[in-house]
Amino acid sequence: MQRAVQAGRVSRIAEPTLRRLAGYYRYFRDLQTRGAVSVSCHVVGDELALDPTLVRKDLESISIVGRRRVGFAVAELIAGIEAHLGYNGLNRAFLVGAGSLGTALLGYKKFKQYGMEIVAAFDVAPSRVGERVGDLEICHLGALPGLAREYQPQLGIVTVPAEEAQQVADLLIGNGIGAIWNFAPVNLRVPSEVIVQNEDLYRSLATLSHRLVMKHESAGS
Amino acid sequence: MQRAVQAGRVSRIAEPTLRRLAGYYRYFRDLQTRGAVSVSCHVVGDELALDPTLVRKDLESISIVGRRRVGFAVAELIAGIEAHLGYNGLNRAFLVGAGSLGTALLGYKKFKQYGMEIVAAFDVAPSRVGERVGDLEICHLGALPGLAREYQPQLGIVTVPAEEAQQVADLLIGNGIGAIWNFAPVNLRVPSEVIVQNEDLYRSLATLSHRLVMKHESAGS
Repeated sequence: MQRAVQAGRVSRIAEPTLRRLAGYYRYFRDLQTRGAVSVSCHVVGDELALDPTLVRKDLESISIVGRRRVGFAVAELIAGIEAHLGYNGLNRAFLVGAGSLGTALLGYKKFKQYGMEIVAAFDVAPSRVGERVGDLEICHLGALPGLAREYQPQLGIVTVPAEEAQQVADLLIGNGIGAIWNFAPVNLRVPSEVIVQNEDLYRSLATLSHRLVMKHESAGS
Repeated sequence: MQRAVQAGRVSRIAEPTLRRLAGYYRYFRDLQTRGAVSVSCHVVGDELALDPTLVRKDLESISIVGRRRVGFAVAELIAGIEAHLGYNGLNRAFLVGAGSLGTALLGYKKFKQYGMEIVAAFDVAPSRVGERVGDLEICHLGALPGLAREYQPQLGIVTVPAEEAQQVADLLIGNGIGAIWNFAPVNLRVPSEVIVQNEDLYRSLATLSHRLVMKHESAGS
């Protein structure tokens, strides 16, 4: 066991590293399935198209240190990432807004493996309430307070239109949910202790568009 | 007009700044609609819950400088962001995979305002081909090469299952598309000149889960 895990504490990690750790995790799980016991950061880098030095630095951020000629122990890597990314616990989530985006999220089969289970989904549209998506039946939003007392969810997923998002966030927070994964393109106003992670596609598109602008610039110059 | 726009060139900007610029843009457009001519970075910061110093730095990254007591000219801010984020051009996009996630993306009404138009959508499922989603009729994937010659799209959006994503990416690239917005949770292998932007929800969830772990750590200590 490595230091961070031994101590029962995890350290704060920067977002780009966290996103890569999720990618490593998928790869290490796959390696383990195929019987691998250890791996070098050069192999990891080759496989995931990353600089081996960056790989080493990322793995050290979860306090895993490789051994000369042996490399990194795959089981330790997996345990370390699970501890830091909360994959060894399971956060219960409520999803509000079972339109096409909400339905798409309900179709992500591996969320459980990544530490989250969507335990209930809500909508207000008569055409959606009562429908089954995967294992869940869409509930009316009015049932949320009662189900929140029952499930004590840690996380709320907001997949309603922009103009309804604040109201939904208020409802989730009012029912004891302390973290929101917001897919609506709005800035939610929440108390300071509430975690909000925005998944705003217009913002992602901005990054992509800028890269296209830069590509055209360099091709044109 | 500001320097970057005058020179007809834009400078490379870091991703966190780009994402915030997309948020500013939405706010500035709204301000302009409401008749505002100038704005201070303190007001922007208040409105978007950001540090005013960060706002100033972000706006300077697109070579817009505020004036003492007058603030920033809203029209200049909008033009500057449009130049850097490519909003004044319009990228044509093909979307492949018209399941629930693809359908959700086809429902994003403001992509055009953010510099992208989805001009065709493809699937292979008989239940999807020929269906209308918004203004588009879903085409069979076999029609992609012909339509690519007609539309000359700059961007391909991949919303197929993970196991089909590489094949779809190859098809898009083989038909002259130089940038891919990938929603499938896989590492695509592409030629070095092709731009890939991954929208991997498992990676986003990793960030959120880590924040929950940190919150529990600090609550427990």
